Amino acid sequence: MIILGIDPGSIRIGYGLIKTNGGLSALDYGVIEIKRKNAAELILKAAEEISKLIKKYHPDMAGIEKIYFSKNVKTGIEVSQTRGAIILEIARQKIPIKELSPSEIKLAVTGYGLADKKAVAKMTARLLSLEKIEGFDDASDALAIAIAASATRTYLNNTLDEN
Amino acid sequence: MIILGIDPGSIRIGYGLIKTNGGLSALDYGVIEIKRKNAAELILKAAEEISKLIKKYHPDMAGIEKIYFSKNVKTGIEVSQTRGAIILEIARQKIPIKELSPSEIKLAVTGYGLADKKAVAKMTARLLSLEKIEGFDDASDALAIAIAASATRTYLNNTLDEN
Repeated sequence: MIILGIDPGSIRIGYGLIKTNGGLSALDYGVIEIKRKNAAELILKAAEEISKLIKKYHPDMAGIEKIYFSKNVKTGIEVSQTRGAIILEIARQKIPIKELSPSEIKLAVTGYGLADKKAVAKMTARLLSLEKIEGFDDASDALAIAIAASATRTYLNNTLDEN
Repeated sequence: MIILGIDPGSIRIGYGLIKTNGGLSALDYGVIEIKRKNAAELILKAAEEISKLIKKYHPDMAGIEKIYFSKNVKTGIEVSQTRGAIILEIARQKIPIKELSPSEIKLAVTGYGLADKKAVAKMTARLLSLEKIEGFDDASDALAIAIAASATRTYLNNTLDEN
């Protein structure tokens, strides 16, 4: 199974594609730079890049982080708009989308719902047998989201047992 | 010229289509009920209904209200997501989109940026030569947004001169 994880932001969108085949492996990850003059251009750019990833990797499922609040309301609105466009793009392709809370992602990856960012990044790399996840944190976060979206209860229990 | 005005909300989206041909007239208006089980279904429904309106009326331009803040953050996130999906749908059809602030809409319709909702609704009906705008306020608001999107400086000056 191929899973697309997405971490939408106001300046860039992190993406991560993983393959579950007994173990987990990373197919691709990176960021989409979306800063543009206006909302329509930004949203079009985000949707087009997500569409390219879908055409290239044909994911069976997608995971996207839930947004709860933003300290900066303007940023919160922008990120939510981009998120809406991405969800539309994915839903149009009839790919199931899992919305995951930050604590669900942390729990799935590290076995601890209050884990810090560093612990999540480290465990994400370990689960994907990567020495290091290159580039922006957004890409690592997106891979963590993909792992969390793939995590069944069984998988989650195994992770918990390891700790 | 045909202009589509949109007032996105969390439960329903108001829409209004006007024609500018010397004067202004309403082609169609109403609301799209979007309450759904999950974000993906809601967003798909909103985008599909907007797409139908675009196919039916071929608007030359669209206007959508800017969101600044929301007292209820959850609602603000939901509305922003829907708004992002609608902007994507319109931008995909290469229709220019004007984002309008509440005060720009009020100013364009009534000549006064701090006009109350009732005054805006009344003036919207008058400008469109309608006895009454039926149904939810969202539809009337969407027509006001379409009028504001159509308003050039000249039009705006004429409105201001009338008062």
